[in-house]
Amino acid sequence: MRNTRTENFQYELVTTDGDARAGTLATPHGVVRTPVFMPVGTQATVKAVTPRDLQELNAQVVLANTYHLYLRPGAELIERAGGLHDFMQWRGPILTDSGGFQVFSLAARRKITDDGVWFRSHIDGSEHLFTPESVMRTEEQLGADIVMAFDECAPYPAEKEYVRAAMERTHAWAERCRAAHRHTDQALFGIVQGGVWPDLRRESALHLVGLDFPGYAIGGLSVGEEKDVMQLALEATTACLPAGKPRYMMGVGAPEDLLNGIAAGVDMFDCVLPTRNARTGALLVPTGRLNIRNAAFRDDFRPVEEGCPCYTCTTFTRAYLHHLFRAEELLVYTLTTIHNLSFLIRLVEGAREAILRGTFDEYRKAFLERYRAPDAEARAANREARHRTMSVER
Amino acid sequence: MRNTRTENFQYELVTTDGDARAGTLATPHGVVRTPVFMPVGTQATVKAVTPRDLQELNAQVVLANTYHLYLRPGAELIERAGGLHDFMQWRGPILTDSGGFQVFSLAARRKITDDGVWFRSHIDGSEHLFTPESVMRTEEQLGADIVMAFDECAPYPAEKEYVRAAMERTHAWAERCRAAHRHTDQALFGIVQGGVWPDLRRESALHLVGLDFPGYAIGGLSVGEEKDVMQLALEATTACLPAGKPRYMMGVGAPEDLLNGIAAGVDMFDCVLPTRNARTGALLVPTGRLNIRNAAFRDDFRPVEEGCPCYTCTTFTRAYLHHLFRAEELLVYTLTTIHNLSFLIRLVEGAREAILRGTFDEYRKAFLERYRAPDAEARAANREARHRTMSVER
Repeated sequence: MRNTRTENFQYELVTTDGDARAGTLATPHGVVRTPVFMPVGTQATVKAVTPRDLQELNAQVVLANTYHLYLRPGAELIERAGGLHDFMQWRGPILTDSGGFQVFSLAARRKITDDGVWFRSHIDGSEHLFTPESVMRTEEQLGADIVMAFDECAPYPAEKEYVRAAMERTHAWAERCRAAHRHTDQALFGIVQGGVWPDLRRESALHLVGLDFPGYAIGGLSVGEEKDVMQLALEATTACLPAGKPRYMMGVGAPEDLLNGIAAGVDMFDCVLPTRNARTGALLVPTGRLNIRNAAFRDDFRPVEEGCPCYTCTTFTRAYLHHLFRAEELLVYTLTTIHNLSFLIRLVEGAREAILRGTFDEYRKAFLERYRAPDAEARAANREARHRTMSVER
Repeated sequence: MRNTRTENFQYELVTTDGDARAGTLATPHGVVRTPVFMPVGTQATVKAVTPRDLQELNAQVVLANTYHLYLRPGAELIERAGGLHDFMQWRGPILTDSGGFQVFSLAARRKITDDGVWFRSHIDGSEHLFTPESVMRTEEQLGADIVMAFDECAPYPAEKEYVRAAMERTHAWAERCRAAHRHTDQALFGIVQGGVWPDLRRESALHLVGLDFPGYAIGGLSVGEEKDVMQLALEATTACLPAGKPRYMMGVGAPEDLLNGIAAGVDMFDCVLPTRNARTGALLVPTGRLNIRNAAFRDDFRPVEEGCPCYTCTTFTRAYLHHLFRAEELLVYTLTTIHNLSFLIRLVEGAREAILRGTFDEYRKAFLERYRAPDAEARAANREARHRTMSVER
């Protein structure tokens, strides 16, 4: 069997506080302090912000999507540009998702076989095949530091037998990805599936651990299930993962989910939520979300969040952002995105500091006491919106 | 008669080179080196860029529009925010246009009387009256350093008698603006009209000079007339303006027009062209315009303009911008706007240096020899687009 060890890639567990972990993750493009929230740059750009904005926000890792970049501009082109780092000019670590989640969310436009997935492009309807081997080749061309194995993410809700079959296919594909993986400067993560069933989650985690990946992703959560159901499935997973490898919870970015994920021992998170919400005017503050389009902010001359160090909060008022939204001015998307990313990055930085001090539980409780998450109805509407936009992001 | 002298506002003519002038213009928010190209921030934001982007580009003055800001968010609100400088956080000088051009371009939705102009908002159809006195009050609330008198800009083409009547109304309104103008930290500019007729232009310039404004704007040009016709009307105007006051040519920003305007003795320019073109993918380079959406740029890994010091050119490739345009990514509007502004600001900075060295004519000729302006057809299409967008900007 091929050697899957990866050069220039080393996770070090610095300390634990309960199940919460603080660590460092060395990559060819720098050391990441974990836990970490990673902004999503689906199409080789974090929407509406520049790489220097991201640097100023202390963003450490940026995500990109194999599915989108394979279709446009094409992985060959990005390879010719010198890889994603050169193409998008993000000098820190990059992680590419494998496209598994994206092709499955195409629903009627894809067909799954044991070999791989045939799908029709959401851009022009053209037909394509993703296999574990082709996805490894594409991720190689993109050149990220951390690459995901090709997985099958079952929908929610789904019958347990369906979820088991998808999990087993994911395991077989993980092995094929491992065999096809060649670049020692890219770390390949296996993806744990198993839906909401703790027994399937344990089985999936143990199976992948047997394949000895340099890191493990946790897929298929936060897809519509209740929060406590998600938390049980998550905890069943992390309990089976080795302490010496990083754990990455995919597509999760609501503040309460981040803190609960960290409490369960997760090290890495990504989500389109802060950037997508920003573009609709939903801004994160310690008490919840405020919708800057509301008339109440017309003459509110305070910053979005008092004490926030981001460019938006140190420079502009709520009244100005409200005006820009009403006037449909492009600048507002940049400014609101900067703030929402700042909020989540600081939340997770604060969690790391608390873990190092051994006070994470107080940190989490103090935050959750103040923060009023959107209710179930708002969350459902948000999921609806995610489907409609067809941006097929995790 | 009221004293129209303005504190903290002083134009100094440093040197001339033919009719071209290099000068300095002291304002309450800093000294402007002229000639100068001023980016347009119609709705209290230069579209898609931040104030710190503008600062990095060496933008010296930013424009805003009384018409737009009066309607949304309202001048009272901006006054409560501490004025435009505080509201939009641009710390350099600001110039507000009076809304004259905007209300006249509303065509069927406005009615002109000697008292002022009744018009219907392009936003919600509500009815409003602009008079010279009301506009002065609104510009006072906005708090710009340089404010324009309320004028009537005749359409092109128009009968000479119509243009004369509009000019005479503009003169009467200029006098009323002068009488209503109170703030000594705001410099009120009169606006020369007279269409394409050199005799009317001379008459208008001399009339306004008689009213002794601290600066003179030249309105009603570049509204569809041929380039040589515009140049004759412009030269007739500047010949009648005093050497010791700044001259501002309104709404002009094509590279060739800037250099020809400077050759005719103009000190200040503004135009939405670089920012609007940027958002359609038309990028300014020394040889003309390139449309970054063209397939030819798909794998062009050069910067937009070799040697350009802007963030876009020092960081990204044409291939990346092409990808962002195809993928409809918001970031591209920021990046292309930064480059187009950099191009025009540097063009005019270079003109100033050439004037100081006494080599402006060579500078102008060398540029025009290389630069291929879009042909008449493309200009007509651009005008068409301007009308359709109803952004009623100069």
